[in-house]
Amino acid sequence: MRVFLVGEASTHRDDLTAGMDTHLRDRIEIVDLPREAAHDSVHDHLIAPDDIVVSLRMNRGGAPLPRMRMLHVPGAGLDGIDLKALDPDVVLCNVFEHEIPIAEFTLASMLEWEIDLAGMKRGFTPETWPDIYRERVPHGEIHGKVLLVLGYGRIGQAVAARAAAFGMVVLAVDPMLADKADPQNVAAEIAPPARLAELAARADYLVVTCPLTESSRGSIGRTVLKALGSEGVVINVSRAEIVDEDDLYVALTAGTIRGANLDVWYRYPKGSDDRVTPSQHDFHALPNVRATPHSSAWTRELSHRRYAVIAANIAALIRGEPLRNQVRTAR
Amino acid sequence: MRVFLVGEASTHRDDLTAGMDTHLRDRIEIVDLPREAAHDSVHDHLIAPDDIVVSLRMNRGGAPLPRMRMLHVPGAGLDGIDLKALDPDVVLCNVFEHEIPIAEFTLASMLEWEIDLAGMKRGFTPETWPDIYRERVPHGEIHGKVLLVLGYGRIGQAVAARAAAFGMVVLAVDPMLADKADPQNVAAEIAPPARLAELAARADYLVVTCPLTESSRGSIGRTVLKALGSEGVVINVSRAEIVDEDDLYVALTAGTIRGANLDVWYRYPKGSDDRVTPSQHDFHALPNVRATPHSSAWTRELSHRRYAVIAANIAALIRGEPLRNQVRTAR
Repeated sequence: MRVFLVGEASTHRDDLTAGMDTHLRDRIEIVDLPREAAHDSVHDHLIAPDDIVVSLRMNRGGAPLPRMRMLHVPGAGLDGIDLKALDPDVVLCNVFEHEIPIAEFTLASMLEWEIDLAGMKRGFTPETWPDIYRERVPHGEIHGKVLLVLGYGRIGQAVAARAAAFGMVVLAVDPMLADKADPQNVAAEIAPPARLAELAARADYLVVTCPLTESSRGSIGRTVLKALGSEGVVINVSRAEIVDEDDLYVALTAGTIRGANLDVWYRYPKGSDDRVTPSQHDFHALPNVRATPHSSAWTRELSHRRYAVIAANIAALIRGEPLRNQVRTAR
Repeated sequence: MRVFLVGEASTHRDDLTAGMDTHLRDRIEIVDLPREAAHDSVHDHLIAPDDIVVSLRMNRGGAPLPRMRMLHVPGAGLDGIDLKALDPDVVLCNVFEHEIPIAEFTLASMLEWEIDLAGMKRGFTPETWPDIYRERVPHGEIHGKVLLVLGYGRIGQAVAARAAAFGMVVLAVDPMLADKADPQNVAAEIAPPARLAELAARADYLVVTCPLTESSRGSIGRTVLKALGSEGVVINVSRAEIVDEDDLYVALTAGTIRGANLDVWYRYPKGSDDRVTPSQHDFHALPNVRATPHSSAWTRELSHRRYAVIAANIAALIRGEPLRNQVRTAR
């Protein structure tokens, strides 16, 4: 049995084997495939029905994906997989573990808007010390500020738990949990999506942590941004398209909102030669945008945790035991 | 009755009067004094025994301080006041409220060491996007890391409570609380100062939150820094002299420790013309030092909260009611 690691996954061979015992390591052959194997059928003949593929993306533009035993996505999002083109006999699993680093990234972002450590450091030298000390400009606190989490799943709850420890007021919008009691007893209110603008009007920070679905796509547009207001900040750590690209750019340039942390983008490179820009607008050039390259979850610890889950799932598959995070069961 | 606001305090006249009713405002006269009035007796003849002085510092180099009714320090630290030179009839109060911003600053600092948002932003442009996205360098997490708090009072506990929400392991060193149960049930262990080096050896972050006393002065020196080790970071938000100036500089330049956030300094400007440098060493020039100008607590919200307490204490003093944070009772 072969385990194909496609594109970025191939850099985690050590993380994967670290979670395997000798017996398992002897039974499998690990094979790297280039990033193009996610989008191009040229490597499909290598993949046998008994093999496992680890890849964030698998799409042939609608044409059938190769037969395999298991497709293990080494992330949470399934939007890179053409599910309709995947044979129903293929076991499909994903993996989480990213709520920890995403929550840390989100709190770091909110704290940076209030404190501006980078700005504090800039301009403070031994020579300027006496003047700087006398003329210190006070900064802000997240304590008492209002956080609105759009999507109260694993990530939203991880953000909320930490924010609550800082004394932030937590509001959430979630279609499944609306008007129910918060399982972790942190949110002051969980409202349905129809009330997003109303809650945004009370928020200092609007953090996007919901999945991209047909109903979440574009759900943050002109109306919600206007409600968030000139003191409000958008932090998107989920999928770019949940926030309307044009409306966001207009709101940021017009000062309708205070600013944004954008870690997810409207266009991603597909092959190695793809020179696509992250958006049709130059968000990077705006002084009130903190643009990062889809890095919020990207920690060393995340890979260790994720590939440990994948290794355990490969072992379980071989032994016929139950799998973790199985998205659909083979027919 | 006059209320003298010395130096920086004079910039908070609005914060002070915001917390006063009309009746109180009519009974007092608020007078600004320059920063020099803290160190120079030239303005002392203005201050009558019935007056109130609000000042972070009061020192005549050993000579007696002027008689007044109350000296209200608008901060927590009393090291700027020559207590022996203050008439025992003077009521002395201080004020806290800074544990919130200091804890936020400390968490922001730890998160920045792990995540490096500033570094993520740098170099990410529309043109570099495809390459940056493919070659993202993973960062770290504070989750699971070990925090050692030196001084488990208001500030240490505020830092610890937030750190625990991130899944950090919290250790504390405190002479008063050693070997007792943590009042907020967060620290895995509270040890006496004699065990500082032992606990430092287990820590990723050593945060200094104790007051400067004869026993805390220089308590972080060569031995503790060596124990902290090349992966360890010192964050000092208390008083510089708790960390030995020479030993810290050597440890930072030699790579004995990973780095430091230094928000407090070895030398402060006294008068307006004082061009003193913050240290005899050029900590600013070191790439592993994040130097900030004693700003960790310096928030807009802090001033609102603190001057509200001072206003309430002035009102209570006039009415003969109990005061908050009275350091010593008039004879």
